[in-house]
Amino acid sequence: MNAILKSPADIHAYMQGVGQRARAASRAMARASTAAKNAALGAIAVAVRRDKARLQAANAKDLEAGRTKGLDAAMLDRLTLSDKAVETMAQGMEQIATLADPIGAIGNMNFRPSGIQVGRMRVPLGVIGIIYESRPNVTADAAGLCLKSGNACILRGGSEALHSNQAIAVCVREGLESAGLPEDAVIVVETTDRAAVGELITMTEYVDIVVPRGGKGLIARLIAESKIPMIKHLDGICHVYIDDAADIEKAVFIADNAKTQRYGTCNTMETLLVHAAIAPKVLPRLAKIYADKGVELRGDAAAMKLAPMHAATEEDWRTEYLAAILAVKIVASLDEAMGHIERYGSRHTDAIVTENHTNAMRFLREVDSASVMVNASTRFADGFEFGLGAEIGISNDKLHARGPVGLEGLTSLKWIVLGSGQGRA
Amino acid sequence: MNAILKSPADIHAYMQGVGQRARAASRAMARASTAAKNAALGAIAVAVRRDKARLQAANAKDLEAGRTKGLDAAMLDRLTLSDKAVETMAQGMEQIATLADPIGAIGNMNFRPSGIQVGRMRVPLGVIGIIYESRPNVTADAAGLCLKSGNACILRGGSEALHSNQAIAVCVREGLESAGLPEDAVIVVETTDRAAVGELITMTEYVDIVVPRGGKGLIARLIAESKIPMIKHLDGICHVYIDDAADIEKAVFIADNAKTQRYGTCNTMETLLVHAAIAPKVLPRLAKIYADKGVELRGDAAAMKLAPMHAATEEDWRTEYLAAILAVKIVASLDEAMGHIERYGSRHTDAIVTENHTNAMRFLREVDSASVMVNASTRFADGFEFGLGAEIGISNDKLHARGPVGLEGLTSLKWIVLGSGQGRA
Repeated sequence: MNAILKSPADIHAYMQGVGQRARAASRAMARASTAAKNAALGAIAVAVRRDKARLQAANAKDLEAGRTKGLDAAMLDRLTLSDKAVETMAQGMEQIATLADPIGAIGNMNFRPSGIQVGRMRVPLGVIGIIYESRPNVTADAAGLCLKSGNACILRGGSEALHSNQAIAVCVREGLESAGLPEDAVIVVETTDRAAVGELITMTEYVDIVVPRGGKGLIARLIAESKIPMIKHLDGICHVYIDDAADIEKAVFIADNAKTQRYGTCNTMETLLVHAAIAPKVLPRLAKIYADKGVELRGDAAAMKLAPMHAATEEDWRTEYLAAILAVKIVASLDEAMGHIERYGSRHTDAIVTENHTNAMRFLREVDSASVMVNASTRFADGFEFGLGAEIGISNDKLHARGPVGLEGLTSLKWIVLGSGQGRA
Repeated sequence: MNAILKSPADIHAYMQGVGQRARAASRAMARASTAAKNAALGAIAVAVRRDKARLQAANAKDLEAGRTKGLDAAMLDRLTLSDKAVETMAQGMEQIATLADPIGAIGNMNFRPSGIQVGRMRVPLGVIGIIYESRPNVTADAAGLCLKSGNACILRGGSEALHSNQAIAVCVREGLESAGLPEDAVIVVETTDRAAVGELITMTEYVDIVVPRGGKGLIARLIAESKIPMIKHLDGICHVYIDDAADIEKAVFIADNAKTQRYGTCNTMETLLVHAAIAPKVLPRLAKIYADKGVELRGDAAAMKLAPMHAATEEDWRTEYLAAILAVKIVASLDEAMGHIERYGSRHTDAIVTENHTNAMRFLREVDSASVMVNASTRFADGFEFGLGAEIGISNDKLHARGPVGLEGLTSLKWIVLGSGQGRA
């Protein structure tokens, strides 16, 4: 396919065709029964398990090309379709099949004085564009979530996973066809030319929403260029604030977990705020734990007096390390903590540790982030942990979906009216 | 103010200042108590009634300028702050005060296996930009809705209503101040330079959403230029489909009401679709009613055989007349009717008239419009008729708010987590 798409005009024509096919398929998907959608998911799982050898043979080509290109070990690891990765992909399809179908649900049908009855029905968004990097399992996961929510999708994976993604797409198409659903409900873009991404994020006629999954460079470029609304977040500068009324054991456990349970995730704590009155009791203990785990601390002057650490610069408060580094600041009050979060945070996930009810309630109400927590680790900001069953992404925006986004974020509510012949007076 | 804002640089600096003030005020508004917000609304109503003479004196200046500029009678009428218009404005504030406060509401707090309890809290969007044309009462209405929903707003009215809008702004500021709320929660832009609109719709740092209220020319320009999400609709090409299983009396009443109850509104029917099997019974009767009311019909060949009318062109199916003109098409099936709506409609409001349950349910599910109705007039697509209590606008978009938008559309849901010391395993 790549070979024949040589010019920008070719790419444009190809992507327009992809958009038209997806739009047409989206109409059939919106009407699809829950049974048909679940049958497709089950059939994809069967095909993925059955075709393990074929998937791994395609994946081997990508891995070989990746090694030649000099991809690092972490990237090669993400790219690998191990036996376990194939089984996880199949189980993911079965798990999405068990989720309740959000489409067609009708709520709050209330009679109005005019005699009409008014409520809302949940409907698909239409066509979802998904742009992702190396992990080939996203091809199946994203297709499954879009399918279950009655949407068509256009998947544009990274060039390093091209063969793997195309091989998975064969299983997905087979599953759709076997359930009587249109194959074009899931289209895996067949060119890795970057111009295809430019087309995808500007085809307002054919694509209703774009979900970018990948590093900051990718997201920042898409924010600048997309003409289509996106479910996305750029930064996860998450805070834990240890209030002066905190339980010290909880504070130590949560601050440890929020930083060290995993370093590279967007809901990992990047700045620890500690009330001055409790800092002498909690910070030395935490510093010892962090030191044992190899976490580098960067603190303000007050924090540096309580534990060994480097001096933080203004830049540290604004940095998402995604690494074993933590910024630490001593604050004089809850208000100072919330002011710091307002000024430097990224409105992703922020937590307070406190036994004081009034402080907990103020923090919950006043901190303007997608997820706000009391006495829990920021690492819980996740679709599975929140009970969504699955997650297509996390949004830092306030419109539409906010925070972890599951099936519901791929849907919309339309108004429905049941009358018995009424006209407006 | 206008006098000193001479250069684009002046306008830019002024609007940046407006944005910063609004953003700062939005933080206090997000925390404002229901009592304070209602007190402000009540105080605005008092001030508006008390200052009637002052408001009308300011309005007289605008009316005189409008007459000099040659505004037509309809525009002058919309611009006039009559005794009744002033009283309606005051009552509007009192009515918004009676609506339930959406902010801070917490829903669906469920325990998860990890022991955390997860739910969502309704929060304000932040800063709303509202761009509107001649009606000065929008200044009070929009300010009231933004205030009640805990948002700050920047109001940019039309130049023809400048004095009226500024006079109303004095009452709004007085009401906010008397309730202990920041005056900058409602900022009426003091320049009528068009560049101020360009600034408002690109200040992504200070404005969270823009609501344009006005003619198509305004909306189309803003869609092209805005960097900020909008609650808006461009067209209202609404359909009524009379199914072959329709009750003829209901069909005649609804098709009459949907077209003739008011011609110039976005939820007025612009195209009537009639099943061929029922057309001979219903179309001649309707044609007589329309003729008596002066409605011009433009039909396809089949419709022209059943009643006197002009021939419709392809363009008629795509036209929002906003006038006493109606396009009429005979269709062979429910599927053809839904296909026509899909192809030519604007996804605003569409209705079926039928006694057949299966057809009614298919139409409700399959027609992808903001409001879909069975046996009711399209004219019901309205915030008051739907029970929202008030309406800031109507959205044809699928993301965030869809259809008539009330207080809830000016809010967002954030996730909240209550833990007791949990970390992620």
